[in-house]
Amino acid sequence: MSVTAPLGFRAAGVVAGLKESGDRDLALVVNDGPSRAAAGVFTRNRVKAAPVLWSQQVLSGGRVRAVVLNSGGANACTGPAGFQDTHSTAERVATVLGDSAGEIAVCSTGLIGERLPMDELLAGVDRAAAELSRDGGTAAADAIRTTDKVGKIAFRRAPAGYTIGAMAKGAGMLAPSLATMLCVITTDADLDAALLDRALRSATAVTLDRLDADGCLSTNDTVLLLASGASRVAPGEAEFTALLTDVCADLTRQLLLDAEGASKAIAIEVVGAANDFDAVMVGRAVARNNLLKCAIHGEDPNWGRVLGAVGTTEAVFDPDALNVAINGVWVCRDGAAGDDRSKVDLKPRDVTITIDLSAGASTATVWTTDLTAEYVHENSAYST
Amino acid sequence: MSVTAPLGFRAAGVVAGLKESGDRDLALVVNDGPSRAAAGVFTRNRVKAAPVLWSQQVLSGGRVRAVVLNSGGANACTGPAGFQDTHSTAERVATVLGDSAGEIAVCSTGLIGERLPMDELLAGVDRAAAELSRDGGTAAADAIRTTDKVGKIAFRRAPAGYTIGAMAKGAGMLAPSLATMLCVITTDADLDAALLDRALRSATAVTLDRLDADGCLSTNDTVLLLASGASRVAPGEAEFTALLTDVCADLTRQLLLDAEGASKAIAIEVVGAANDFDAVMVGRAVARNNLLKCAIHGEDPNWGRVLGAVGTTEAVFDPDALNVAINGVWVCRDGAAGDDRSKVDLKPRDVTITIDLSAGASTATVWTTDLTAEYVHENSAYST
Repeated sequence: MSVTAPLGFRAAGVVAGLKESGDRDLALVVNDGPSRAAAGVFTRNRVKAAPVLWSQQVLSGGRVRAVVLNSGGANACTGPAGFQDTHSTAERVATVLGDSAGEIAVCSTGLIGERLPMDELLAGVDRAAAELSRDGGTAAADAIRTTDKVGKIAFRRAPAGYTIGAMAKGAGMLAPSLATMLCVITTDADLDAALLDRALRSATAVTLDRLDADGCLSTNDTVLLLASGASRVAPGEAEFTALLTDVCADLTRQLLLDAEGASKAIAIEVVGAANDFDAVMVGRAVARNNLLKCAIHGEDPNWGRVLGAVGTTEAVFDPDALNVAINGVWVCRDGAAGDDRSKVDLKPRDVTITIDLSAGASTATVWTTDLTAEYVHENSAYST
Repeated sequence: MSVTAPLGFRAAGVVAGLKESGDRDLALVVNDGPSRAAAGVFTRNRVKAAPVLWSQQVLSGGRVRAVVLNSGGANACTGPAGFQDTHSTAERVATVLGDSAGEIAVCSTGLIGERLPMDELLAGVDRAAAELSRDGGTAAADAIRTTDKVGKIAFRRAPAGYTIGAMAKGAGMLAPSLATMLCVITTDADLDAALLDRALRSATAVTLDRLDADGCLSTNDTVLLLASGASRVAPGEAEFTALLTDVCADLTRQLLLDAEGASKAIAIEVVGAANDFDAVMVGRAVARNNLLKCAIHGEDPNWGRVLGAVGTTEAVFDPDALNVAINGVWVCRDGAAGDDRSKVDLKPRDVTITIDLSAGASTATVWTTDLTAEYVHENSAYST
């Protein structure tokens, strides 16, 4: 179902010939309205790919008719010529839809630093436009995969009579600012761009933005939210935001489970923080600690690594008041050894590390993976 | 030679029984004067091991008679009882030397979160004191090893007639703030504590502090500088600082080459920075990028990873004016593909990545290693 679950959307995923594998590599998602309100959040990396620079301009208008996405090349670090390639791609989509390029968003993913083969890509746009359909969402989700083992899709139907659908890709470069390189969310709710923007920022802040697989911030991260209004239902902001958050949490979990080379899905729960900022900061510091990520891979409840990571932050805490539980066993109490670490069972794939800062009542959860030899292998062999 | 190269120092390295391997695990370095001026720099981790808390107090007085160091246990995250263990260790050294515990520094390295076996450790102090000698420096350097494959020692004789000697350990947890867990530097120059402090901070800032193997900041990092004054030579501050920097650079190189599981020694040279702060910030961001470290391991000149890391910083730069050379080949010019990347030879162990920010005249070099399956293996099997 994916992005075509809501009314008013068509999609397609085709083989444009950008991937050497011959797999699908170009997706098109079209909003047939009646509304075309939209919002987007983008990577915080200052080195932004051409399609990010383009789509930020498009989204500043709050309206999107269609999104064209390609795998097989990130079109990042490609200079003015690369930006022109993105512009040409949007123009081609506009032409085939009889619409304005200024309302066509573009997303790309793949290797950095290489120009896209534009003849193949533009022919792919034509082919995708010809294949647009109400059940094209799954093919579109397949077409945006890079090293993803599986396509990621989600949808929810609200009792009030509207639907949210989504697709995402991202199995590496899961980033501190946005966990997925590319994510398109659609809804047939009737909402304006300002509300969509608030809802999207709120939802991603506690889901996709808290998935930190390797601390590496992509040049291409993009999350778009498109509303067709075709259900004629205008839900309240709180209700819509809650459902959108649920969809984003679903995608976050899928991204976590498919992260490159990972054998553990680690939830870092920070509790007792003085404020939300501290809670997230501590969660991220622990999520990025390579030594801890290796220890969890080795099924070693090495809580010293957790304290070492907490200590690198500016959060409010007293080192002698820190408590740490691993999979429910409080192996560290008051900054020193607590319950018997041999009671910790680290065999399951899901691992929960709870850190009590004893400094307040704020909490946050950040998700990460373990660090494995497979991660090293995949990322040392990626471009060659 | 190590720490006993300068006049006025004796040292020993003995088997106290802290390591299961039965290798040497306790070192003692004694300054016989006539001066006992000293300076220290310590980890910036807020979770500090008991010996760090103790030695910071000792160094606040600017005088050190002796340093006792143990491997086989970090005495970190051990609570008030662990601090008492450190105190008792200093007292025992003071007793055998007939001196004050307030001028005995203590350093520990090994697993976090476990108490030290004090009976063995204190008996080891007695044994080390009995074995103190003018040629004990090498045994002391051997005794502080943990996963270090080799002991690290250095010394320099100044034409002016004084000497600097040093030993260090650290093959993992090479940290952003201090690259080695433990380092003791001795000199027979006659210098006061204030000058030693300035010289040590200046020297470590451009050497040990710029070695960032895995971004993980230890709870125990300590660098101590002890001056006996036995040469009766009082060099100028600039001259002494230059020689001290040379010694620290030598140790930094040894630490880099022995980093856990590394197959590449990577120098990240940042040039054209607006200021020194920017240059170091960019160097560290690149040094900590797991994806780049994997790519270099795979001998893949993936300059896009470099730009992706640079873009995460707040440094002054224009993404379209970034240039990157890998081993001398400018594979990225003006933020896009430059010279043919197939010309880059990444087979040698030493790799140099030059990043031109085109924003000023400041430069800095940060050293790091590649990320390997061996690193994962060593750190996933460390405590179990």
